[in-house]
Amino acid sequence: MSKNVLFIMCDQLRNDYLGCAGHPTIRTPHIDALAARGVRFSRAYVQSPICGPSRMCAYTGRYVRSHGTDYNNVPLRVGEWTLGDHLNSFGARAVLCGKTHARADIDGMKRLGIDPASPKGRQIGEAGFEVWDRLDGMHPPGLKHPSHYNDYLRENGFDGDNPWQDWAASVVDTDGTVKNGWLNEHAHLPARIPEEHSETAYATNRAMAFIETAGDAPWCLHLSYIKPHWPMVAPAPYHAMYGPDDVVPVVRSEAERDSAHPVYQVAQDRKHATIYNRPGARERVVACYMGLITQIDDHIGRLMAWLDETGRAEDTLIVFTSDHGDYLGDHWMGEKQFFHDAAVRVPLIVVDPTPEADATRGTVDTRLAEMIDILPTTVEFMGGELRSNILEGRSLLPLVRGENVVWRDCVFSEADFSRSPARQELDRPTDQCRMVMAFDGRWKYVHTQGLRPMLFDLEADPDEMTDLGTHPDYEAVRARMKNRVLDWAFGGKSRITQTDAFIETKPPEFAKGVFVGFWDRAEADQALAAYQQEKAG
Amino acid sequence: MSKNVLFIMCDQLRNDYLGCAGHPTIRTPHIDALAARGVRFSRAYVQSPICGPSRMCAYTGRYVRSHGTDYNNVPLRVGEWTLGDHLNSFGARAVLCGKTHARADIDGMKRLGIDPASPKGRQIGEAGFEVWDRLDGMHPPGLKHPSHYNDYLRENGFDGDNPWQDWAASVVDTDGTVKNGWLNEHAHLPARIPEEHSETAYATNRAMAFIETAGDAPWCLHLSYIKPHWPMVAPAPYHAMYGPDDVVPVVRSEAERDSAHPVYQVAQDRKHATIYNRPGARERVVACYMGLITQIDDHIGRLMAWLDETGRAEDTLIVFTSDHGDYLGDHWMGEKQFFHDAAVRVPLIVVDPTPEADATRGTVDTRLAEMIDILPTTVEFMGGELRSNILEGRSLLPLVRGENVVWRDCVFSEADFSRSPARQELDRPTDQCRMVMAFDGRWKYVHTQGLRPMLFDLEADPDEMTDLGTHPDYEAVRARMKNRVLDWAFGGKSRITQTDAFIETKPPEFAKGVFVGFWDRAEADQALAAYQQEKAG
Repeated sequence: MSKNVLFIMCDQLRNDYLGCAGHPTIRTPHIDALAARGVRFSRAYVQSPICGPSRMCAYTGRYVRSHGTDYNNVPLRVGEWTLGDHLNSFGARAVLCGKTHARADIDGMKRLGIDPASPKGRQIGEAGFEVWDRLDGMHPPGLKHPSHYNDYLRENGFDGDNPWQDWAASVVDTDGTVKNGWLNEHAHLPARIPEEHSETAYATNRAMAFIETAGDAPWCLHLSYIKPHWPMVAPAPYHAMYGPDDVVPVVRSEAERDSAHPVYQVAQDRKHATIYNRPGARERVVACYMGLITQIDDHIGRLMAWLDETGRAEDTLIVFTSDHGDYLGDHWMGEKQFFHDAAVRVPLIVVDPTPEADATRGTVDTRLAEMIDILPTTVEFMGGELRSNILEGRSLLPLVRGENVVWRDCVFSEADFSRSPARQELDRPTDQCRMVMAFDGRWKYVHTQGLRPMLFDLEADPDEMTDLGTHPDYEAVRARMKNRVLDWAFGGKSRITQTDAFIETKPPEFAKGVFVGFWDRAEADQALAAYQQEKAG
Repeated sequence: MSKNVLFIMCDQLRNDYLGCAGHPTIRTPHIDALAARGVRFSRAYVQSPICGPSRMCAYTGRYVRSHGTDYNNVPLRVGEWTLGDHLNSFGARAVLCGKTHARADIDGMKRLGIDPASPKGRQIGEAGFEVWDRLDGMHPPGLKHPSHYNDYLRENGFDGDNPWQDWAASVVDTDGTVKNGWLNEHAHLPARIPEEHSETAYATNRAMAFIETAGDAPWCLHLSYIKPHWPMVAPAPYHAMYGPDDVVPVVRSEAERDSAHPVYQVAQDRKHATIYNRPGARERVVACYMGLITQIDDHIGRLMAWLDETGRAEDTLIVFTSDHGDYLGDHWMGEKQFFHDAAVRVPLIVVDPTPEADATRGTVDTRLAEMIDILPTTVEFMGGELRSNILEGRSLLPLVRGENVVWRDCVFSEADFSRSPARQELDRPTDQCRMVMAFDGRWKYVHTQGLRPMLFDLEADPDEMTDLGTHPDYEAVRARMKNRVLDWAFGGKSRITQTDAFIETKPPEFAKGVFVGFWDRAEADQALAAYQQEKAG
């Protein structure tokens, strides 16, 4: 039986905006059903709370400090091992349907004599994926990548230079006028595009089309939705599915603003944060956000029914996750980019169709999971080699199959505020703006280059309202967590060209005639004889 | 005037085995003269006290944790920026004459569709160098790379399958019998090869031949001697130039053996260390080592005279250094690989021919220099771009030119004992055997994964006899140094595909129409107008 993987990713979906995660009003019955078929990892963390870097972590199985893409649109360096490289090494395919946020390292390819337009160059430029359909999020005119979706829209009569902007990301007011979907005052209006032609419907259709026509080679299909990421535009009926009463209250306190960490203080002053201080704005935006999630849920339901019907659900491992969350005004912040659970914790559901996983179906696993675990999970499920000298994540398969393993006790995530106004406001050198979060299940510690640390006790303070980063009573905790950060910083896997197994089985130099520190022939002969004996015995 | 660089490297030359560095008996008048022409950096440290990794640091301007070659024969990953990449980017050449210890990343090239046999593939495989003459050290039969030197030997009548082994690395006993040069009991016997055909003479001749025929493009020639590295074989008359009276006493104490760090304890028990406990062995080996150094010195003299004569000394920056030192029995250790000055500190002389450097000629600069500084020094001298998002070293040119700069106050070096018996004896996982040294000019602190730290006070204890790694009085010093290691661990430059300048000059997203967190048109227009005004003003 062929073993395939369907790796579904949403964009900017918070960990707590699912019914199965405890949200009181959102309706996500199909995703909840997915959780019931498999294991929901309730404490899953991304390795960067921002699209591009988080995705490159997913596609390389490595931390940002290792793959180097530390912000959106930083090209993934040529030569990084991607999901595609790992799968291709044993004859499997890594296929893209949707968003990657990958930027091609054109200069790197040219420097190495690789033609970016060649098949290999294109695969390198697509973060290792074979592109079935790239749908990389809406771009204003002049900035967009070539997009299959724009072609599709035109073919279906939605015309214009950039029909995506003009139809899918535009809204229609009650008087029939078309309005700019970028502006959040319009978040309660329906998209100009009919739902069946919207991004989420389109991506789901395209995924099914791939699976239908996929050949014999085993595949991992990355179905990567661009929603519920902004622009805040939902097609009817989802635009009006939720109202102010469905929106949970914002999580924030005056104290959080008064004594914010300098980097967070700057973040609190940004437009995407202060918009939530405008009366009614949050209710309008969050209702739209929720509608977009329920729309995804409906398509997940459609997709799962189809997989069951075609029998593909039986041989396909399903992963459902998101690249990061969204502050939605919590902690006086907007967007993502930093380390509160709102931004850095994501949904993660793994459905393993094999009988080995029957015992864990419908369970919630509270062990700490990382986005970089998905690649090794995929490789192990498909029967490939787990390259321990490259991969920094761990396969979740033993957990899903109820095996007894010693698991990690800390997760890590990185940010770089050199692209935030904080760099200039805090007068930091461009290459000295790094932050690392270490979370051990209770303590969330954030180390920041050249600035004070942060510390939150998620047991006593699950909403992360009180920063203990300078509190005198927690010096020992901070010292302990700082050591974890140091250990982590030391653990980078940069020796990608030589395996651990090679090191463990390498014969001594003298076995090859390189006698270093040998005095005479007798010593050399004695060492060789002892080595031969050890090898034989 | 063309600006060239002659980058001379010895192999395994200790910092203190030069007349100008204070050695009481060794004769190195020509290297001393080189120091008198330029600046001698008396506290220069390599970033790994072992050949391959140290050289890759030199050829990339980056720490081991960044380039990934953490031991000999670990291929340098395809895509790492090398000296060749930096120089080629502005039309200059990086040319090899001698040793690099580079291993080609054949698998990496194949994965990226690069033909290892193509000109580009060959350059990648040679750590970015254009090979004029590769002389990578003697290899026993069956292991050697294709070598120009072997061809040369055959052409000159020194026959055999591996004439290097049979002539240059073999010795002749007093009765005329030929003996194996690998065995150290023969270190006092002359090489079978006449001096004028020995490796050091050959490499020097080949360097002059390159310079003579180099075209108009500016070049950096890497003249990389394989000596005084073992096998301990010196040609006449250098084999007998020094005797037991010229050998300085060994530096070690009983206490060092009794309370050695676990990793060092294993190192003290290895054959290349215990050989120095055999009466008379050290005297014989070190005398040979000294002879090989004086041989290099004579050829440096010949080379400098020729450069003066041809006028090339006027347009050529000269760097003289070594890839690491040699314990020679000090601290009960042999070989290199760890962090005493004997192994990790190297000679470093920089001769800048321009008038800007006249004021510093003949001076000794005690500021902390690193091997990774040579690449940026070369690039700056030749007028190229210093890529701050890639380079981890700093150009020494401002120091050589007497400019007023804020300089570093700590140097770092790395080791990985996963290839030492220490891994198994101390039961460490293969990927958890890293050590990092931080030296701030007084305190030398060594952080080791999973094991206790080491600490030496080089002011009170310049010979590094007393390890304060667990001494209760030095807790504060250790904490401070540990913070330096943490800062260093955080400073890795992995974002090689995007420059710092790009980040600093990037316009805000909304300038491109990506309005995140904007409520209405008025807000958008206001932000755009303010941005335009700021740009104009």
